[in-house]
Amino acid sequence: MQTLWDDRYALRTLNMKGSTIRELLKFTQLPDVISFAGGMPAPEIFPTQEFQEACIRVLQEKGQEALQYGTTEGYLPLREMIARHSNQYGIKVTADNIMITNGSQQALDLIGKIFINPGDRILLESPTYLGALQAWNAYDAQYVAVGSDGDGIQVDKLESALRTGPKFMYVLPNFQNPTGVTIPLDRRLRLVELADRYGVPIIEDDPYGQLRFEGKHLPALVVLDDQLSGNNGSYHGNVIYLSTFSKILAPGLRLAWVVATPEIVQKLVTAKQGTDLQASTFNQIVTHEIGKGGFLDQHIKKIVDVYRDRRDIMLEELEKYMPDGVQWTHPQGGLFLWVTLPEGFNTQDLLRIAIEKKVAFVPGHSFHPNGGGDNTMRLNFSNAKPDKLREGIRRLAETIKENL
Amino acid sequence: MQTLWDDRYALRTLNMKGSTIRELLKFTQLPDVISFAGGMPAPEIFPTQEFQEACIRVLQEKGQEALQYGTTEGYLPLREMIARHSNQYGIKVTADNIMITNGSQQALDLIGKIFINPGDRILLESPTYLGALQAWNAYDAQYVAVGSDGDGIQVDKLESALRTGPKFMYVLPNFQNPTGVTIPLDRRLRLVELADRYGVPIIEDDPYGQLRFEGKHLPALVVLDDQLSGNNGSYHGNVIYLSTFSKILAPGLRLAWVVATPEIVQKLVTAKQGTDLQASTFNQIVTHEIGKGGFLDQHIKKIVDVYRDRRDIMLEELEKYMPDGVQWTHPQGGLFLWVTLPEGFNTQDLLRIAIEKKVAFVPGHSFHPNGGGDNTMRLNFSNAKPDKLREGIRRLAETIKENL
Repeated sequence: MQTLWDDRYALRTLNMKGSTIRELLKFTQLPDVISFAGGMPAPEIFPTQEFQEACIRVLQEKGQEALQYGTTEGYLPLREMIARHSNQYGIKVTADNIMITNGSQQALDLIGKIFINPGDRILLESPTYLGALQAWNAYDAQYVAVGSDGDGIQVDKLESALRTGPKFMYVLPNFQNPTGVTIPLDRRLRLVELADRYGVPIIEDDPYGQLRFEGKHLPALVVLDDQLSGNNGSYHGNVIYLSTFSKILAPGLRLAWVVATPEIVQKLVTAKQGTDLQASTFNQIVTHEIGKGGFLDQHIKKIVDVYRDRRDIMLEELEKYMPDGVQWTHPQGGLFLWVTLPEGFNTQDLLRIAIEKKVAFVPGHSFHPNGGGDNTMRLNFSNAKPDKLREGIRRLAETIKENL
Repeated sequence: MQTLWDDRYALRTLNMKGSTIRELLKFTQLPDVISFAGGMPAPEIFPTQEFQEACIRVLQEKGQEALQYGTTEGYLPLREMIARHSNQYGIKVTADNIMITNGSQQALDLIGKIFINPGDRILLESPTYLGALQAWNAYDAQYVAVGSDGDGIQVDKLESALRTGPKFMYVLPNFQNPTGVTIPLDRRLRLVELADRYGVPIIEDDPYGQLRFEGKHLPALVVLDDQLSGNNGSYHGNVIYLSTFSKILAPGLRLAWVVATPEIVQKLVTAKQGTDLQASTFNQIVTHEIGKGGFLDQHIKKIVDVYRDRRDIMLEELEKYMPDGVQWTHPQGGLFLWVTLPEGFNTQDLLRIAIEKKVAFVPGHSFHPNGGGDNTMRLNFSNAKPDKLREGIRRLAETIKENL
C-alpha cells in the first residue's frame, strides 16, 4: 500500500536497510530448525520462581511506585546495586556514574545520538557486534576497521587507524560477539596506552565478561585506564563501559547500564528523555528486588556451568564431524564461537542450503563493517539443549561436506 | 570531571539541551510541594492486584517466553488485542498495522529517525507536546507553528503553513497536552481535507482520547481520513496514529503503539532494531494477560470517574480563588488544563516564587516551539488527591495575587 509516508521515507537517505539475512533468519524460528543463529540465553534456567516472588513483593509493597513514571537515569537503588556489583570487578564507581538503558542496544543508540556527526569515523574491530553497526549507521557513521585474530583486535595495526582521527574506539574485550575471542592482558594494556596517547576515548562493551568458564578474570579496559592514568582507585572517565542484565538475568526485561562520568551521564539522560523517557520502572524495581540479596552472583555460577557444558559439547562435535580445513575458536566464556571455512566458501549461500537441512547460523559477512568474512559464520551455543546441539552440528557438518 | 568525551560532545552541534525549567522542576519532588507540573496518572487506582495475578499466571504458564528476547514489532497477541481495541474506535486495522514502542515517546523518536532530515520543517500546533519537540530537535527539525484557540489548532491559518512544504503535520486532537482543548468535528474534517489537498501526511498523537469525561467521542483524524479518501472501512495510511497504555493502565510499563501501514511498520521495526531491539517481552505479555478479558474498558471507566472529579475540583477552586484577568480552559477529558495570566506575567519567573510557596506547574513557554506563551502555564489535575488539589490551587492563586 503506497502512502504519502513512503515518499517521505524515500527522501531520507539513511544506511538503515532490512537485510536479506534477517529475512532468511525468520525461517530459523520454525520448530524443526535447530538454530545457532540467535544470541539467546538458555530459557530453562531463567529464575522464574524468583521473579514470581519478587513481582508479588514489589506489587504488594511498592506497587504504586513500580507502575508509575520514574526518573530517566533509572531507579536509584538499582543503580547503587550496579555500582556495588561493578566494584567487585574493580570498576570503582557510584550510582552517579550509572544510567539504566533498555538493553545495551539503547546505550549504543544514545551514544550515537550525542556523539556522532554524519561522516564521523569510528574505530572498531572487524568482525564486530552487528548491533553497534545498526545503531550507528542511523547516524551516518563511517568505520575504520582493524582486523582481529585469536587474541582479538590486532593492536600492532592500531596506530595507523588511530591516526585517522576517529571520534571513538569500540571494543568488546571478553568473549567477543561474534568471534568468542578474548583480548589478553598485554594487548589490553597496549590498547589503552595507545588510545590515551592519541586522545581517542573508548566504548567498552562487556555483556559477557561475567560469564567466564575457566581461567582468570582479566581487568576491564576501564580498570586499566584508571590505573594507567594514575587515577588509581577512582574512575578516570575516558572509557565508557557498557554491561547488561540480559545475559546474567533475563533479556525480556530490557535492562542494561552505562558507566560514564556524571557529566556524560547527564547528556545521555537528556538524550534518553527525548528518546523514550525512561526504562520500565516495574522491571527495574523487580530486578533490584531479585538482585539485592546477592542472588545474581549465585545465579551467574549456574549459568556458567550450563554454558560451559554446552560449549564443550559444541567443540567436541565440531572436532568429531567437521571436515579438514574448517577451523573454529575456543571461547573461554560467553555465548558464541566462530567458524572459518576454507577460502572460496560463501556462508550466505550456504545458509539457504543449511535451512533446508534444518540448521541455521549467522553468516560472518554481516559482522564486517567494510566487507569480508564471506567464509565465516557465528555459532551460538547457549540456547540449544545438548541433544539439539549435537544434532545441529552434525547437520551443519553434513551441509558443509556436501558443498566442499 | 573533564574527559575526552566532553570534547567529543562539544563537536556535536545538537539542539538537545537540558532546560533550566527541568532543573527547577526537580524541587517539585520535595514531599511538601504540591505539584501540578508532571503528567502522572493517579497511582492509587493502578490495578496492582490484577498485575499481581497476571504476573503469577504469566511466570507460571509462559515464564521462559516472557523473560526471553521477543520480536521487534512486539508480542503478537498484544498487537491483536490493540487492533481489536482500535476497531472499537473505528480504526479498522489488524496486527500487521501495529508496532509496540517504549511509550509514545519512542514512537516520536523513531518517526524522527526514519523521516526527518536536518532542517526539515514539521507543521504543528503551538503550544504543543514538549516531548515531540525534544524527540525531533535531536534530528535538527525546524517547526512551522500554527496557533491554537479554545477549539485547538486554527485551521483557517493552516493553508499558508501547508504551503511551506512540511515533511508532516503533528496534532493531538483530544484533550491536548498542554492545553486540554479538543478539536471539534468540523475542524477535524477541514484539517484532514487540507492535509490531503497539500499532500502532507499526519501524525495523530492520541494518548488521552479514551479518557473522555463527558460529551460524545469524536472520530479520530485517522478515521476521517479513511472516510474522506473513499477507503471506508479500511485503513488508508496517510495518518500515523499513536496511542499508549501509559494513561489507561500504567506508565511504568513503557508500552505504547503505532498504527501505520505494514510497509511503514517494517521501516520503524528496522529503526527500532538498531535503537533498542524490542520493548520488554515480560511487560507485553503481562499487559496482554491483564487486558485480554476486557478489563481495560472497565478500568478506563474507573479512571474517567476519578479524573472527572479532580478536573471539577480544580475548575471550582480556580473559579473561587483566581483573581480577575486569569483565564483557563475547561477540558472534556485528559489530564491537563491551561491557564493564561494577564499580559506581562512571566510564568518562568513565577515558578521560582511558586516553589517557595510549595506549589508547582510547568511554564507555558516551554511548549512553544518558536517562543511565546510567557504568561501561560500547564496544570495537571490527574495526580494530586482532592485535598491537595484544593490546597495547591489556593497556594497558586495566592502566589499570582501577590505578584499582580
